[in-house]
Amino acid sequence: MKTATEYIDSLRRRNLDLWIDGERVDNPVDHHMIRPSIESVAMTYRLAHLDETVRLATAHSELTGTRVNRFTHLFASPDDLVDKVSLQRILGQATGTCFQRCVGMDALNALFIATWEAGPEKHERFVKWLTEVQVSDEMLCGAMTDAKGHRRKRAAEQPDAFLRIVERRADGIVVRGAKLHQTGGANAHQILVLPGGTYREGEEDFALAAAVRADAPGVTMLLGRQPSDKRRGSPDAGNFTFGGQEVVVWFEDVFIPTEHVFLDGDVTAAATVLTAFAGFHRSSYGGCKPGNFDVLTGAVAQLAEDCGVSRHAAVRDKLIEMTHLTETIHGLGLAASHKSTQHVSGVWQVDPLLANVCKQNVTRLPYEITRIAEDLAGGLLATMPGLGSFDHPKLGAIMNNITGGKRRAKLMRLVEYMTYGSGAVPLRIECMHGAGSPQAQRIVIERTADWTGRMASARKLAGLE
Amino acid sequence: MKTATEYIDSLRRRNLDLWIDGERVDNPVDHHMIRPSIESVAMTYRLAHLDETVRLATAHSELTGTRVNRFTHLFASPDDLVDKVSLQRILGQATGTCFQRCVGMDALNALFIATWEAGPEKHERFVKWLTEVQVSDEMLCGAMTDAKGHRRKRAAEQPDAFLRIVERRADGIVVRGAKLHQTGGANAHQILVLPGGTYREGEEDFALAAAVRADAPGVTMLLGRQPSDKRRGSPDAGNFTFGGQEVVVWFEDVFIPTEHVFLDGDVTAAATVLTAFAGFHRSSYGGCKPGNFDVLTGAVAQLAEDCGVSRHAAVRDKLIEMTHLTETIHGLGLAASHKSTQHVSGVWQVDPLLANVCKQNVTRLPYEITRIAEDLAGGLLATMPGLGSFDHPKLGAIMNNITGGKRRAKLMRLVEYMTYGSGAVPLRIECMHGAGSPQAQRIVIERTADWTGRMASARKLAGLE
Amino acid sequence: MKTATEYIDSLRRRNLDLWIDGERVDNPVDHHMIRPSIESVAMTYRLAHLDETVRLATAHSELTGTRVNRFTHLFASPDDLVDKVSLQRILGQATGTCFQRCVGMDALNALFIATWEAGPEKHERFVKWLTEVQVSDEMLCGAMTDAKGHRRKRAAEQPDAFLRIVERRADGIVVRGAKLHQTGGANAHQILVLPGGTYREGEEDFALAAAVRADAPGVTMLLGRQPSDKRRGSPDAGNFTFGGQEVVVWFEDVFIPTEHVFLDGDVTAAATVLTAFAGFHRSSYGGCKPGNFDVLTGAVAQLAEDCGVSRHAAVRDKLIEMTHLTETIHGLGLAASHKSTQHVSGVWQVDPLLANVCKQNVTRLPYEITRIAEDLAGGLLATMPGLGSFDHPKLGAIMNNITGGKRRAKLMRLVEYMTYGSGAVPLRIECMHGAGSPQAQRIVIERTADWTGRMASARKLAGLE
Amino acid sequence: MKTATEYIDSLRRRNLDLWIDGERVDNPVDHHMIRPSIESVAMTYRLAHLDETVRLATAHSELTGTRVNRFTHLFASPDDLVDKVSLQRILGQATGTCFQRCVGMDALNALFIATWEAGPEKHERFVKWLTEVQVSDEMLCGAMTDAKGHRRKRAAEQPDAFLRIVERRADGIVVRGAKLHQTGGANAHQILVLPGGTYREGEEDFALAAAVRADAPGVTMLLGRQPSDKRRGSPDAGNFTFGGQEVVVWFEDVFIPTEHVFLDGDVTAAATVLTAFAGFHRSSYGGCKPGNFDVLTGAVAQLAEDCGVSRHAAVRDKLIEMTHLTETIHGLGLAASHKSTQHVSGVWQVDPLLANVCKQNVTRLPYEITRIAEDLAGGLLATMPGLGSFDHPKLGAIMNNITGGKRRAKLMRLVEYMTYGSGAVPLRIECMHGAGSPQAQRIVIERTADWTGRMASARKLAGLE
Repeated sequence: MKTATEYIDSLRRRNLDLWIDGERVDNPVDHHMIRPSIESVAMTYRLAHLDETVRLATAHSELTGTRVNRFTHLFASPDDLVDKVSLQRILGQATGTCFQRCVGMDALNALFIATWEAGPEKHERFVKWLTEVQVSDEMLCGAMTDAKGHRRKRAAEQPDAFLRIVERRADGIVVRGAKLHQTGGANAHQILVLPGGTYREGEEDFALAAAVRADAPGVTMLLGRQPSDKRRGSPDAGNFTFGGQEVVVWFEDVFIPTEHVFLDGDVTAAATVLTAFAGFHRSSYGGCKPGNFDVLTGAVAQLAEDCGVSRHAAVRDKLIEMTHLTETIHGLGLAASHKSTQHVSGVWQVDPLLANVCKQNVTRLPYEITRIAEDLAGGLLATMPGLGSFDHPKLGAIMNNITGGKRRAKLMRLVEYMTYGSGAVPLRIECMHGAGSPQAQRIVIERTADWTGRMASARKLAGLE
Repeated sequence: MKTATEYIDSLRRRNLDLWIDGERVDNPVDHHMIRPSIESVAMTYRLAHLDETVRLATAHSELTGTRVNRFTHLFASPDDLVDKVSLQRILGQATGTCFQRCVGMDALNALFIATWEAGPEKHERFVKWLTEVQVSDEMLCGAMTDAKGHRRKRAAEQPDAFLRIVERRADGIVVRGAKLHQTGGANAHQILVLPGGTYREGEEDFALAAAVRADAPGVTMLLGRQPSDKRRGSPDAGNFTFGGQEVVVWFEDVFIPTEHVFLDGDVTAAATVLTAFAGFHRSSYGGCKPGNFDVLTGAVAQLAEDCGVSRHAAVRDKLIEMTHLTETIHGLGLAASHKSTQHVSGVWQVDPLLANVCKQNVTRLPYEITRIAEDLAGGLLATMPGLGSFDHPKLGAIMNNITGGKRRAKLMRLVEYMTYGSGAVPLRIECMHGAGSPQAQRIVIERTADWTGRMASARKLAGLE
Repeated sequence: MKTATEYIDSLRRRNLDLWIDGERVDNPVDHHMIRPSIESVAMTYRLAHLDETVRLATAHSELTGTRVNRFTHLFASPDDLVDKVSLQRILGQATGTCFQRCVGMDALNALFIATWEAGPEKHERFVKWLTEVQVSDEMLCGAMTDAKGHRRKRAAEQPDAFLRIVERRADGIVVRGAKLHQTGGANAHQILVLPGGTYREGEEDFALAAAVRADAPGVTMLLGRQPSDKRRGSPDAGNFTFGGQEVVVWFEDVFIPTEHVFLDGDVTAAATVLTAFAGFHRSSYGGCKPGNFDVLTGAVAQLAEDCGVSRHAAVRDKLIEMTHLTETIHGLGLAASHKSTQHVSGVWQVDPLLANVCKQNVTRLPYEITRIAEDLAGGLLATMPGLGSFDHPKLGAIMNNITGGKRRAKLMRLVEYMTYGSGAVPLRIECMHGAGSPQAQRIVIERTADWTGRMASARKLAGLE
Repeated sequence: MKTATEYIDSLRRRNLDLWIDGERVDNPVDHHMIRPSIESVAMTYRLAHLDETVRLATAHSELTGTRVNRFTHLFASPDDLVDKVSLQRILGQATGTCFQRCVGMDALNALFIATWEAGPEKHERFVKWLTEVQVSDEMLCGAMTDAKGHRRKRAAEQPDAFLRIVERRADGIVVRGAKLHQTGGANAHQILVLPGGTYREGEEDFALAAAVRADAPGVTMLLGRQPSDKRRGSPDAGNFTFGGQEVVVWFEDVFIPTEHVFLDGDVTAAATVLTAFAGFHRSSYGGCKPGNFDVLTGAVAQLAEDCGVSRHAAVRDKLIEMTHLTETIHGLGLAASHKSTQHVSGVWQVDPLLANVCKQNVTRLPYEITRIAEDLAGGLLATMPGLGSFDHPKLGAIMNNITGGKRRAKLMRLVEYMTYGSGAVPLRIECMHGAGSPQAQRIVIERTADWTGRMASARKLAGLE
């Protein structure tokens, strides 16, 4: 298994075509806007080598017969799914942001199931590739969402709005189109392309799953901009070490050799990817986000203690509420994992109802948690001058006067970062739209709930049966 | 194990001193206000003999070496705690109300732990009694809450406000005082008296746990009144078969023989009872209440279907929301069970943080669930004439005109019953105050959360360490 | 203007055909289930003769040239609409429930506008009748909601589900059908029939407004049942003096003379009634309900004070929250009134957007208010034995022990009454469905909001225009 | 009255000592981080000269006998307070952010009242100054909040944490200390210093109100940093024209001549300032914020329309909810204004209970409004590359593919700006803490509610009196 250092070094060997605001990035690894997001991913490698986390951060693979990094592991038991959520919480605490490697893990498990359903040829091809990934311990970016264009048109009416196969050759396929919201895309070794919607007969060109090197010819990445992202590396960064990252990935007629094509035209198996991935990834939010909120709660708890109000009833009540909401999310992530069932392929799947209920709460409770954090932090959160001012003799004295010192100022910046700066991307928008927007969860909740049984219970108790 | 019929018959052999509104009840078993609550308890006996539920409703006892009713069982594994919650949900669906036997189950597990801490003599005494209970399969009422009087005075200042030992004899003790909110008290064989608060040195007389026959001399019960409770057995009952029940139990110098005294003056072990019971019982609400809400959701779903609006987007969205909130509660009950740890005595204990988070949600989400139910049911919920009117020739025609028939009228009455009639006691007030009022959970949440770790994470990410 | 006593006496002179549960009521005025609701209406007469309320409770009528009871008054200025809301709050405080006379007041104002639009003949006919009502000071029941039957069928497909004209004679019309949810119907002198929906060409028989004596031949009333309604007049009544009331009114081929027919077949004017009434009545909830919640807040505040917890931070915070939510509703009722505009007929109309926003909040905030009340009241709310027990020597002592005395017990019963007993009908279901269910308000909010302007502002600030 | 251009020109004549991140700003008027906030203030001048807004944006002054800009006007009637809120909404729509001039307006009204209470000398001095301000039409910054330091220490224990008088001279006073959160401070002509807390005997040096030129010797300003504030003027600005601003103001022994000192040591009058200002300013939020939310709602409505989902039930429902919450806030701002009462000095004061209820809702509902906006905008909100990419030939094509064009991209950036970018300062943190944090409002709500009356109503209805 790679160490954190080996991971970072390996990134340097890629020849990425990455752009920020119309300018090409020559050295992404050392770019101040990108490096923090690399450090977050690196933490998933680091924990695999620390005594206190090695059990959670690694797992025994049946494919390699060795321990592998959990982020490349197949869910072989309910405990694996529980351990995933527990590990995610620790990583959420350690980075305070998105560590970007969950999509790949959840995606490879979904593809294991879907390729099994697609037949032995595709499944063996996928297992062979996966075994290599476990050995090389590469970082995968899971690429699902297409551009989609006009929402009332289907893919075939606006082909450019969806990634699709434009040519089938003897030794592989050629694909074209964009994938959005690629978490950690610029920090990955490979992109695991997945179908982004459900397709019908006649739309086989869109029913596509495959692995592509991040620096394959024709792959272009555009870095997504985040509020305050240019503050990274400055005294006002908030979170000094870590960050999240999303990129747009454009595939300009990219060739993919057959051995890395896992689904091609099988619309049924493509739908399975979608459902299976949604379940896994919606419960993942029950791990990472509570870890992030632990940091936010800790920050405002520390601020309260530092200025002498930590024993006020109203302050305590608000800190308790943040905790209550955080644990509500985490408990549901755990419950969905515990209540998992085994797919015939061998992989264990979370309970779909509870996974969607978990994620649905993630589209709501974080907004109340951050609201309380902004309440507890106080108004200086929004009006504090730049921390660079501390270094100026006269201004430094003023800064000390108004903040009570750099410690409070830095904690305040961390809260700003997490609630409405760069870190709000993982704490708000990812919570809302990651793994599917709220309406997507409501659809699954409606489909998986037992309406017949509940109506029968009611009729019976009303004396009707 | 007793059958439901044997249970009901056995109740007839008691000589209860039970009163309703100042009048003594001669035959509680056949009293129309009480019988529905007996039927609810009886369901816990019935499921132990049905093929489809026997696995959940019974368990193997290490004490007797046989299968026993789960409601007399010690939690011997995390699965036992999960099975408890699953069984409670089924019972909640089957009765639509409180089935009253959980307090006893959770209490005997708490006492097992507390007597273990109190030493071998007390523990063996308790185990002997518990073994008999498992064999006889008796219904226990767990008696915890005292009258409490003025909230700023301690027990010693107002002794009558708390159950206490007034005399210690060679062969036993004499107790005096009241226990409130005794769920299913009139349907029990025995009352398991527990300490209702934490006590200090000098307050040993209040640190008391013991078993008392429900019809022991000096025990008087007053039936708690519920809205619409006199409608039971009438066409407007709502829930025709089942009901809940609480009584006040007054102990007028009641003698308890030594072999049934499990704690006497041990203030430390008494505090253990409180904490252990709170954990168990707060996660129990993650089972029974979701079952009740399944019925309520089913009722309004059926009403919507019957009057042709079940496919309206707004209706579907509200039904989804009821489901989402119900599963949020249930998932947390499961999570608290799964994350249990083993006490040195052998009994497994739920995760205290998640159990309290579960119950805290139970003090909130049910109010939103019932709000939506009242929305979906429509205004007739509040203005419908008595169903007896259906039997009158002229009025019957009017009733059919306005309700569309008796089926809709009965379902509407069920919704009324559950939201603001007799059934609102378990669906609202029990949710609020059962197993401790909301502030009690907030205290535990504050105590069990890891403040130090979270503040350290925040300081680290802010660049302070 | 009638005094309260004159009002009650006048009710005795009616020959009502009123039924409870299939039994005819001979003397409604003295019936224990009905009298409390009469006392509530009587308060609207009483305040018109008290020095401290006469200004609000009466108004100068341009029709009679004298002061009249405000409940028969046309809204002649924004201040009239504000005074209405202020008077409603006082009446809500004085009765703790629904005083039933607002529907008539809001309906006659809506009809004034609609008949004006229907042409001078209908308008003069209506004004003549209204002048008589102002002089006689009669209680009007406004009858709007039809049975409606299957929601996907129109009125013409299921004529019995809607009140309609079945015969047109030279001297009047004959109507048939049911009106539901008739607030205070059994306490009224006249029923003001209004159209209950919007109708198209071909549905003219349903576009009907007229005045009918409450005891006209063919009019039958069925009393709506409420939880605990049989407790009225007993020690457990909760609210000892006052109550609400709804009836179903059945019109069995009832003849209405032409001079009391105000709309007949004019589908446009019928739609005006609906819109105008909805505006008036939705802002009315900004008056009465806050008055009711004042009582509920006062009850739990008193309970907290009596048992010594009124200075606890958590208790204070909850009482503040109840107040905050109550005033939110009231402020919106006031705002809708202040922002009124004058209809060409002379009557002032509330701001439709704010009136609907007011009512939409009324479908939500009361549920949180009652939730907090149930929290503060404590568990005894649900488990307290009947207050009749106080009169029994032995049980009385027990009751005193557990409740701390009759005062606390009575306040607790009042809270029970208001939250999930008989009084929950006005405090919950009326809040939800009265003056239209929540979706009805959302439709008006969507229609009255300025979408074009807001989208233009956004485009402009985004640099697009 | 100044035109917008005259206002901007006048700012150039100041000699401000303004700093950003340790660097002095030579020309604030043309600085890209500051100019947008100047444009927002300028809008308050512009509307005073437009036909369609002149009535609201100006008012007749009794002091000058002429029309003056409303932002320098005394509230001479309830209509003035209503007009203020209506004007604020228009300005909120026109700028999409904070236009910074309300604090000064609310502060001068509070000082009019407080100086009246402090006696004729102070009052006349203040009126003389105010008359000059009305004539010169200067922009005032109202400076209230002190640094405060440790929250459990009083001002006297940590004098540097509060602005105070350090010297009293024959011709004036010398003050020292910091004022935080100075809205629009760098865009003002004068700073109106106000007491930031309530003081006791012995703390007279802190009970201080006075007017200071923004560029008086010894006044130093530090610009508060906002997320993404450096994007201003770039393609990713979001709001291209307007912005908000807060500064820290440091008073380094600043001399203030006697004619500009309005309160000096009068702790009673100082407390009046606080109370009066809080009332005025808390209802102001019922004007400006709804205007801002109109823009946000318009932006997501436009986005929904552009991508073809605007008729989906879930989308419509969410847009309705945003409107409902926005109007709830606005209605309460209007209600507090309508229900105003006249102070003996002649100025009208808003209803304190409703003003605080308005602001309390402003600390909550905006968080739900922005949550919905983030839901409706979609995930691209967080992952969109910089808009500069549109100008690059290859990247521009990709950008068009993923966004559907620059129009959608710009609207998305506006939503980002308003929800978690620079514009989130006025839409979230100002909503939370401006005019006092949430606990401050709860205290006033508790103090102004009628507890005695409500408890009496409850006792009466419970049959106790």
